[in-house]
Amino acid sequence: MSLFDKFQSLSDARHALIQAEPSPIGTRIDEVLSPTEGRVDGRSVILAGTNNYLGLTFDPDCIAAAHDALDQEGTGTTGSRMANGSYVSHTRLEEELARFFARPSAVVFSTGYMANLGLIGTLAGADDVIVLDADCHASIYDACRLTGADIIRFRHNDAGDLEKRLRRLGERTANALIVVEGIYSMLGDQAPLREIVAVKRRHGGYLLVDEAHSLGVLGAHGRGLAEAEGVEADVDFVVGTFSKSLGAIGGFAVSHHPQLDMIRYASRPYIFTASPSPATIASVRVALDIVASRPALRRQLWANAERLYHGLARLGFELGPEPGPVVATLLGSPQQGVAFWHGLLERGVYVNLVLPPATPGGRALMRISVSAAHDTAQIDRIIAAFAALKPMLDHHGHE
Amino acid sequence: MSLFDKFQSLSDARHALIQAEPSPIGTRIDEVLSPTEGRVDGRSVILAGTNNYLGLTFDPDCIAAAHDALDQEGTGTTGSRMANGSYVSHTRLEEELARFFARPSAVVFSTGYMANLGLIGTLAGADDVIVLDADCHASIYDACRLTGADIIRFRHNDAGDLEKRLRRLGERTANALIVVEGIYSMLGDQAPLREIVAVKRRHGGYLLVDEAHSLGVLGAHGRGLAEAEGVEADVDFVVGTFSKSLGAIGGFAVSHHPQLDMIRYASRPYIFTASPSPATIASVRVALDIVASRPALRRQLWANAERLYHGLARLGFELGPEPGPVVATLLGSPQQGVAFWHGLLERGVYVNLVLPPATPGGRALMRISVSAAHDTAQIDRIIAAFAALKPMLDHHGHE
Repeated sequence: MSLFDKFQSLSDARHALIQAEPSPIGTRIDEVLSPTEGRVDGRSVILAGTNNYLGLTFDPDCIAAAHDALDQEGTGTTGSRMANGSYVSHTRLEEELARFFARPSAVVFSTGYMANLGLIGTLAGADDVIVLDADCHASIYDACRLTGADIIRFRHNDAGDLEKRLRRLGERTANALIVVEGIYSMLGDQAPLREIVAVKRRHGGYLLVDEAHSLGVLGAHGRGLAEAEGVEADVDFVVGTFSKSLGAIGGFAVSHHPQLDMIRYASRPYIFTASPSPATIASVRVALDIVASRPALRRQLWANAERLYHGLARLGFELGPEPGPVVATLLGSPQQGVAFWHGLLERGVYVNLVLPPATPGGRALMRISVSAAHDTAQIDRIIAAFAALKPMLDHHGHE
Repeated sequence: MSLFDKFQSLSDARHALIQAEPSPIGTRIDEVLSPTEGRVDGRSVILAGTNNYLGLTFDPDCIAAAHDALDQEGTGTTGSRMANGSYVSHTRLEEELARFFARPSAVVFSTGYMANLGLIGTLAGADDVIVLDADCHASIYDACRLTGADIIRFRHNDAGDLEKRLRRLGERTANALIVVEGIYSMLGDQAPLREIVAVKRRHGGYLLVDEAHSLGVLGAHGRGLAEAEGVEADVDFVVGTFSKSLGAIGGFAVSHHPQLDMIRYASRPYIFTASPSPATIASVRVALDIVASRPALRRQLWANAERLYHGLARLGFELGPEPGPVVATLLGSPQQGVAFWHGLLERGVYVNLVLPPATPGGRALMRISVSAAHDTAQIDRIIAAFAALKPMLDHHGHE
């Protein structure tokens, strides 16, 4: 018995499943040529397994701003926001996020994972209750665990089940923290946010929406699902990340409650960590401006998403419930998933293989992600690669 | 009663204490001119409150490498290490960290906070026991909380108390995770690592040393306290950060247990977060090489630390137990601490004000941090500023 025993079996299972190189788990990207092209295992591939939804990682203005920040402010702040790590650029980004969301307060964190830990972990304490969608991201679950609060999960995207659970809480509902996501990262489906808001209006509570995958993607101004659904006034807290549509790394929280600023005094993942590097902050500030000023990028993303989704649907693939920047293709066994992933790579297409337990029903899932930077020919090549491999599924069925 | 009530009192207390601008809590650095100079509130200041121990944030080779990475790989990876976020540079840095520490395995995390969460939170489970120094960093406490393990604190830097607590654990000791730090961040004191290793040898367990503040600072090759004390073979896990001597942001774990690599399959703060940006990884790789190849930087850091420590000691300040890159000056009340901090700033010296409960005995603490990039004149100006303010302490005493 050793400390390592507890993950030996998981490691063994992965090794038994994945014997051929390159591995679909932690694939090494040998070269990144553009937001949509790279080299893996000596092969040119279309990158269709990133969260680079607007293709901004190589945007010349974002890159130029990062270069300037490097020269002017150095490679890092070497300090927490609460000590020496609040440069003017950090505070400017917070002001710009607040303005972008038309809310009084915004707080920047060093990663998106830490934004959830830092916000949820500070808002809720051991006496509180958190009611979250069962499919919420691991960072939300970890944040809940840190709070020591009572954790109640409701059935994924089921506002009726949320209502039932809130009703059972009685008076505790008034202070309950309800947590959902704008777009769920595995199946790409959106929360039924108007229904959830209606439930919140009837029963009370605070609503937090993690717009990690919907920021820059949904809403006329790119503010996410709450904007698209016209319910921003009912959302108490928005959490988001810089590592998807904004092309960098970091996270943030915004709120119409001015008290959000107070979490700076109490949030351990905010206080006890180094602040984001100047280059990161600089590129994110430009990217946020692009999200606001170039809606054509969003339209291109959605045109690509629709083309891919309907193209695969016509081929008979079993897909997630709706088109979006994440298009999920459900396959059969994990073994089949690994073989399918290698088949795609041989055809020059890199996607994410997702394996149980992160998937429903013990099945493998191909998570394809679309970027505004993909051109039509690339989308069609992805569809063609899936078409060529389709017989593999028909042959083996879903086991 | 609202969700915000729980941090209202903390916020009120801070506002009551800190009324004059600029605030010593979350001070805005208006301009960063060099590793040791900046502008705060319209004033040129010596930066003596960073973790920039080797002054590498403006190293031309680190900056150049970051520029190249930005151009070649973009502003971010937009993906987890387990998906599309493992570039060649991430894997190279892990190889270089492993070589630097002469261990088989190294794993890179996106922040230092997440390195502790990701390593400790994966190694220990609900059936395990963690025995940690009571003064360990918040990220270690948060990691412990996530594990659900039994948490036992021993008296700060007291190997005898550690031994007593291990003895009580009986058979569970064999699998206990003992956690200490190389240099503690508030008082700058070092762990009695040879004594702690002797206790571990007698009772068993795994030893983790967080070398966040000692990497690049201690040891002939800059590997930290374990190297300096000649006990590296007895340390099972080293955790460290990129945001102090290496001048960037991120964290890592290394181990002589080859099984460390398995945590990639189970560690949620590793799997469910975006990987560090290419520019960060590039500058860290160069900085690590500088730590290994330029021991003169370490000698300069220590010369500065000794000069500052003994200079303040001669003036009669009550200091932490030993010289080092962190020199702590114990003051009286929080009010006195705030006034003293403003006095230093007026004299062109920026340091970190640390307030209770993060300090011993309800007293305020000035955390001065030294860099190899400080010149002798700057160290002497810091000492002179403290000398000028000394009457403030003598007048009010320690209450």
